[in-house]
Amino acid sequence: MEKILRINMADLTTSEEAVKEEYKFLGGRSLTDQIIVDEVDPKCHALGPNNKFVIGVGMLTGTTAPCSGRLSAGAKSPLTGGIKESNAGGPGGIMLARMGIKAVVVEGKPEDDKFYIIRITPAGAEILEAPEEIIGKGTYDTAKVLIEKYPKSNVMAIGQAGEERCAASCISVTNNEGDPSRNFGRGGLGAVLGSKKVKAIVINNEGKRDGFLPIARPDEFKPVAKELSKMANEAGKGLRAYGTAVLVTPVNKVGGLPTKNWHTGQDENFEKITGQAIHALAEENGGQWGHACHPGCVIQCSNIVNDKDGNYITGSLEFETVALFGSNCLIDDIETIAWCDRMCDDFGVDTIDTGCVAGAAMDAGLIEWGDKEGLKNFVAEIGKKTPLGLLIASGVETFCKVYGQSRVPATKGQSIAAYDPRACKGTGVTYATSQMGGDHTFGNALPGRGKDVNPNLPDHQVGVIRMLQILSASIIDSTGTCLFVGPSVTKLPYITKMVNARYGIDMTEEDMIEFGKKVLTQEKEFNRAAGLLDVDMPEWFKIEKLAPFDLVFDVPEEDVANVQNFDVEMDTTRVW
Amino acid sequence: MEKILRINMADLTTSEEAVKEEYKFLGGRSLTDQIIVDEVDPKCHALGPNNKFVIGVGMLTGTTAPCSGRLSAGAKSPLTGGIKESNAGGPGGIMLARMGIKAVVVEGKPEDDKFYIIRITPAGAEILEAPEEIIGKGTYDTAKVLIEKYPKSNVMAIGQAGEERCAASCISVTNNEGDPSRNFGRGGLGAVLGSKKVKAIVINNEGKRDGFLPIARPDEFKPVAKELSKMANEAGKGLRAYGTAVLVTPVNKVGGLPTKNWHTGQDENFEKITGQAIHALAEENGGQWGHACHPGCVIQCSNIVNDKDGNYITGSLEFETVALFGSNCLIDDIETIAWCDRMCDDFGVDTIDTGCVAGAAMDAGLIEWGDKEGLKNFVAEIGKKTPLGLLIASGVETFCKVYGQSRVPATKGQSIAAYDPRACKGTGVTYATSQMGGDHTFGNALPGRGKDVNPNLPDHQVGVIRMLQILSASIIDSTGTCLFVGPSVTKLPYITKMVNARYGIDMTEEDMIEFGKKVLTQEKEFNRAAGLLDVDMPEWFKIEKLAPFDLVFDVPEEDVANVQNFDVEMDTTRVW
Repeated sequence: MEKILRINMADLTTSEEAVKEEYKFLGGRSLTDQIIVDEVDPKCHALGPNNKFVIGVGMLTGTTAPCSGRLSAGAKSPLTGGIKESNAGGPGGIMLARMGIKAVVVEGKPEDDKFYIIRITPAGAEILEAPEEIIGKGTYDTAKVLIEKYPKSNVMAIGQAGEERCAASCISVTNNEGDPSRNFGRGGLGAVLGSKKVKAIVINNEGKRDGFLPIARPDEFKPVAKELSKMANEAGKGLRAYGTAVLVTPVNKVGGLPTKNWHTGQDENFEKITGQAIHALAEENGGQWGHACHPGCVIQCSNIVNDKDGNYITGSLEFETVALFGSNCLIDDIETIAWCDRMCDDFGVDTIDTGCVAGAAMDAGLIEWGDKEGLKNFVAEIGKKTPLGLLIASGVETFCKVYGQSRVPATKGQSIAAYDPRACKGTGVTYATSQMGGDHTFGNALPGRGKDVNPNLPDHQVGVIRMLQILSASIIDSTGTCLFVGPSVTKLPYITKMVNARYGIDMTEEDMIEFGKKVLTQEKEFNRAAGLLDVDMPEWFKIEKLAPFDLVFDVPEEDVANVQNFDVEMDTTRVW
Repeated sequence: MEKILRINMADLTTSEEAVKEEYKFLGGRSLTDQIIVDEVDPKCHALGPNNKFVIGVGMLTGTTAPCSGRLSAGAKSPLTGGIKESNAGGPGGIMLARMGIKAVVVEGKPEDDKFYIIRITPAGAEILEAPEEIIGKGTYDTAKVLIEKYPKSNVMAIGQAGEERCAASCISVTNNEGDPSRNFGRGGLGAVLGSKKVKAIVINNEGKRDGFLPIARPDEFKPVAKELSKMANEAGKGLRAYGTAVLVTPVNKVGGLPTKNWHTGQDENFEKITGQAIHALAEENGGQWGHACHPGCVIQCSNIVNDKDGNYITGSLEFETVALFGSNCLIDDIETIAWCDRMCDDFGVDTIDTGCVAGAAMDAGLIEWGDKEGLKNFVAEIGKKTPLGLLIASGVETFCKVYGQSRVPATKGQSIAAYDPRACKGTGVTYATSQMGGDHTFGNALPGRGKDVNPNLPDHQVGVIRMLQILSASIIDSTGTCLFVGPSVTKLPYITKMVNARYGIDMTEEDMIEFGKKVLTQEKEFNRAAGLLDVDMPEWFKIEKLAPFDLVFDVPEEDVANVQNFDVEMDTTRVW
């Protein structure tokens, strides 16, 4: 029997319950969403006692489906005020799946001011006082102490930012090597854990598979998983060699690379920060490429970045981090960018929001453009918990508010990712309609996405984006599958078949699409009740022309508004 | 002919236009609202080029109607994101009226980074480069320099906070003596002026009355004005002697005085900060009471507060300022509170939002409870423009976000005033439904307001509040009349008659009520389009009991939601 763990931080008790019938075929995002919708008042304060922090295991997690170990976390977001799901790599999802734990719900707030850790093993869940030496510390120190104490565990920890409940706090998650370089990055989930005084969640299935729901029709499952693995393996070659920063070149080419705080979309020095440059550096100084974020990943887009003396700086340096601390700050030095990433992981803040803050701070005159030491010192403020540090960790919308800037690169309170919506118009449609704030993974139209769709033009974007959002919500985020397997129509039959074989059910592909629509609709309804607008695209993207191609975001608002209005039919001929 | 001045900060030109037929019988809030609704996109960024700053002269301003010289200013608010009207005393309104200027519309943004001043005289409006010596300076220095240069002018200036476009920036307005102690206090209008690079507006009618619209039926006007003056004069005795801080005692009595960051509603030391105590201090050290905020004021609730050596500290020290820097911070020293008020006026920030920030900062451990020097140093940060200073000047909602606090004393982004909504439930209904954010003047149920209505109980509040909101919008804020004349049914005939006599029209009292409803509805529609919720009452006021009477805000939400739904009839038997 699969179960749900309930962790009550108000009275410091834990309990287990059987999975409700209605939750049986949910997983990942659809599961965290459903629990939040069922149990959290959309109007509660995200840091108050009535918000809940929910972990949801993907439908396929723990199986041999390729790249299916990503774990979802959700809550009402302190950053956007709406519903939030963020997923991370690391071995924790698979460990939970093997213990038969489908979800973990952390609720309430302790009366006292102590920090706690939650430990989950086959023996059950326990709430323990956090060891003195991790309080006020970064996630690297925290993970080290906790893994020494509880060997081979997966640690999900908050840093200084989460302890202080800053709105852009993340939860850093240890990878296979025990480095907290993976993250539930977006939406301020670290602040929610911090508000509940949970410094870390420590998970270890101790090698056991007790409670793991067996695959209902294994013979049907295996060949499909194998075939999809092969496809993902093949398609992932570029990512494996160069990481996600392989995107620097194509995004720069279409004029959508955030450069100098979004003043232009092309950086003349872009070649110094590409995935290829990161790869070359790794060859020189003993870094790694082709690194897996969780067991069972065949794409292996992650990396390890060392300094010039061969010492570890950070892991999983991603495209968004590279672009936002790089071109967006006129920084062309990978080591500097890697240090910013490391500090963000360590202090426990989202690199995307923080990179946007850094660009805005340069515009505000707090740091000189391209000043490497200045940038590192700026990010280091977070760890010192100075007023400036806490402000940085509150995300770019709040930073811009305090520094009186009207060029806010955020939707629904969360910074957009490293694709300028004026040049990457499909992604712009997603930013405008994402229920998660400015989140590219909600339905990302990478340059070239959609048959013959020009990212610089408004045409055909909304039809493509609608399907991307539906498939991201269903076959990707709800199954625990990595985005790089692809929220595409070509992958729909594979993943639908595996879900059917896993649970012994018979969904059609159309059912899966309807399921995705239901997830999106449910998120929209929660957010409406919380007071968020359906469509949010900052005015300045519509009126300030982006060099060098003089682009504005000009997808007609009435079309954008229909992306999640499933009563209206849309052109899907360009979807693949 | 009355006219509207248009100040284009994009191309630095000014122009005049005749008042449109539709604006002819509008004034004050109804006029600034209408211009904003007609000309400003609700979704524009408040600090972007498409917001407008609008001054609107009251319908009765410049006449002998008692206390009718208050001037309205409006814009889309950077604090709430919604429509904003804030009104201030000082002689500027009367000066504009006498020049036949009904409204001033400041639009656009200059290309360069220079600050400007706008000068308005009978010769017209001109845009001048701001003198070097006022840039980066507080409003006291600014007013002094500008009044020396342009004697006898009324100066409306922003301080450091407005220059930096902080969201809780105010515009400080000189009183009859030339001290900038009056304010367009709420909603961040200083930031809007700052975004347009306007350091100050300098007004002088040079004693002329050219352009003043004559009263259409003077014989009908005079006796009503005289009678209402007598009533206001009589009713204002307590305010004249003790100022608005006369409210400390009754608000404390009903358990609604914000004390220790809203943890309790009664302060054992309240007697040290009452209006009576301020009066006694003034008798000792040469301060003043019974001070008029503008010519023609018969109530004269303003004051001058000196230090123990008889030196001027501040003017117009109000109840809200006293309570929020006083009991809310466990400060019982009037001189300390007066210095906080002075600094807020000088740096150009709202005392209400800033007082709330100070309380929250004490809760966050940034200042010790009751630490007088600590509090003054904290407020002084604003003038230094440190990150902390800019954060303080961004208002309590943003401060709480950065410091991870869920007890946010704000609605729609703006701090509530010094009446705890759990004890003063009528005012709570106004906070929840005010289109201006947490603004008591939107419909203030002072303790005792409404026939036999107990402020601690939810009963009968919404009917009383609806009428207060309607009358505040119509006979008070649209006519330029001071709130202390009274948004009451007993004053409705007087003010309606004066408006009729002034314009030569024949509105009924019912027409005036319909007019108030129209103002409220228009504001609600703008705010809905901007993405604001109709009703906003923070969760914690509903779940955290207020000592000593253990009160929560428990007016039923469905009733609150109907305050501005004029299709639903409400109990108005308790209205007076």
